[in-house]
Amino acid sequence: MAFLPKFDSAGLVTCVTTDAVSGDVLMVAHMNDEALRKTIATGEAWYFSRSRNALWRKGESSGQTQRVVEMRTDCDQDAVWLRVEQRGAACHTGRHSCFYRKVEMAGEGGARLVFVDADRLFDPAAVYRK
Amino acid sequence: MAFLPKFDSAGLVTCVTTDAVSGDVLMVAHMNDEALRKTIATGEAWYFSRSRNALWRKGESSGQTQRVVEMRTDCDQDAVWLRVEQRGAACHTGRHSCFYRKVEMAGEGGARLVFVDADRLFDPAAVYRK
Repeated sequence: MAFLPKFDSAGLVTCVTTDAVSGDVLMVAHMNDEALRKTIATGEAWYFSRSRNALWRKGESSGQTQRVVEMRTDCDQDAVWLRVEQRGAACHTGRHSCFYRKVEMAGEGGARLVFVDADRLFDPAAVYRK
Repeated sequence: MAFLPKFDSAGLVTCVTTDAVSGDVLMVAHMNDEALRKTIATGEAWYFSRSRNALWRKGESSGQTQRVVEMRTDCDQDAVWLRVEQRGAACHTGRHSCFYRKVEMAGEGGARLVFVDADRLFDPAAVYRK
């Protein structure tokens, strides 16, 4: 059975990346054909940045790389699930996961954010300065 | 801290839904403002179907509903992570998760799909016939 990813009009599939140990969702990102190929070939996570319009090896600036334990695809092959060993933190804010806040009801149909994990594993200002 | 979802040009955020017990990724879908509000207000998962261009309560046809245990959002608030109690199967093919196949290298840079979980918990032909 061939892997035939169904790219959207921008040439991308959605990628969900989880921590292979804890199961936590670390991040949601996108991959183009080249990012998929490089991820499969190297066993390291590569993505495509929509804001920078560029291929991107996870951790190339921060050192916070992701080793792929397993890659899956969904029923219609327009999404990919990576289970990874995360080195350090996945989030550019320095948190282990990008999903470090939960959404809680706040009356009148509103909602507020509450920190689940505020700890920073690195200092973004130090890591990303050029 | 207010929850201020960052909708894309189509008015959607990406939603990753995981099984609160196993941690498995069940599905990737989208939510518009109304789907988010209804999910928060009712504690049941609502999505927006891009193919049908319609709001959709998960399980309204199949009975395979999702009770929300926790909702999180990511660093830039353009994605949501739902941890749910899945009743039956999340996938329209009858499998528990939409991610029932893994992607494996197949030499020459190619890749093939291998079933991780082929079992169907319901018969789609019976459930979705009108």
